Amino acid sequence: MIQKFYNLEINTNGQRLYEFTDDTIQWIKESKFKQGILNLSIQHTSASLIVQENADPDVQTDLINYFDKLVPMDNKLYVHTTEGKDDMPAHIKNALTDTSLLIPVKNGRLDIGTWQGIFLLEHRINSIQRKINLTLIGE
Amino acid sequence: MIQKFYNLEINTNGQRLYEFTDDTIQWIKESKFKQGILNLSIQHTSASLIVQENADPDVQTDLINYFDKLVPMDNKLYVHTTEGKDDMPAHIKNALTDTSLLIPVKNGRLDIGTWQGIFLLEHRINSIQRKINLTLIGE
Amino acid sequence: MIQKFYNLEINTNGQRLYEFTDDTIQWIKESKFKQGILNLSIQHTSASLIVQENADPDVQTDLINYFDKLVPMDNKLYVHTTEGKDDMPAHIKNALTDTSLLIPVKNGRLDIGTWQGIFLLEHRINSIQRKINLTLIGE
Repeated sequence: MIQKFYNLEINTNGQRLYEFTDDTIQWIKESKFKQGILNLSIQHTSASLIVQENADPDVQTDLINYFDKLVPMDNKLYVHTTEGKDDMPAHIKNALTDTSLLIPVKNGRLDIGTWQGIFLLEHRINSIQRKINLTLIGE
Repeated sequence: MIQKFYNLEINTNGQRLYEFTDDTIQWIKESKFKQGILNLSIQHTSASLIVQENADPDVQTDLINYFDKLVPMDNKLYVHTTEGKDDMPAHIKNALTDTSLLIPVKNGRLDIGTWQGIFLLEHRINSIQRKINLTLIGE
Repeated sequence: MIQKFYNLEINTNGQRLYEFTDDTIQWIKESKFKQGILNLSIQHTSASLIVQENADPDVQTDLINYFDKLVPMDNKLYVHTTEGKDDMPAHIKNALTDTSLLIPVKNGRLDIGTWQGIFLLEHRINSIQRKINLTLIGE
């Protein structure tokens, strides 16, 4: 068995989903990896990683709206307000979702189902550079 | 080190938890796997995987009720309504829970604690066939 | 490739975050592990594992308060009440967060970003002994 590593950087500009399924597929292809698991981990706790439907973009709109209502950007609700009204809600949204994902790889391809994509879910308002670690373990 | 793969299909018929701890234990036993980690990943984003108490079935009832209140099936709340009133809530519930799990395996046995089981958590109303990838990595 | 195992026990005394980043770093150092992934899994479903900011302790206060509001300790809301008013909310909070984490290891060091730590998030009120499995997979 072997492992392979890849570092991905995504520049975000506001609260939405950023798909990087194609970058991931391209790297797996180039690495000539056949089967095993892919781990994706984000080095931040104010943004998340998520596997989600990529067929209808309305799903992404609804997701963002839902999380904004569930975790309001209202300084009166939090003690930690020094980093902006979106920072504490961002940490909570991160706790409610995921910082790492695991996806099986079969025959050199991601096995996530037909309508699914891999996304970074940005919880902060301003532009930020996000770092993601990809690790393949298998053969 | 080695890896082993197994595909499990579960036919669901409504919003509840479907335990498959025994199928998992049986497969690990047959594979003669000794120690490492077990990854379970579901190929859908409108159902989840969850480790949860399997002693008192009331825990499952409360879980389902809680998530139904937290993410109401009300078309007025969402833009994505074309796949039914339960589809967008299903995607949100999926984002709030997990699409993949990792469980340690020791001495050929799942190391999840005495009262815990592995479940598929179905968020859709209608009958659906769900696909789960199981991967053992270790020795 | 190799794998290494470690069992960690944490005695909790109430609903808060318990950091164990240093114990984890110390073990990785002693194991002379170079690169791969670290899996952390908790053997309970009434406490969670979480990667979160460890710079400002207010973040932890806000997290605890938020989850207590989101999942109230009110027996009238649940069927499963025999194990105390905090037990069913604990299981729900667990479902909303994570029972296992995956963190990359590079050059013998956790690659989780500058301001992040690894925590046990206790959802129960009384003192409990919690068991966590750590598994390194790599080289």
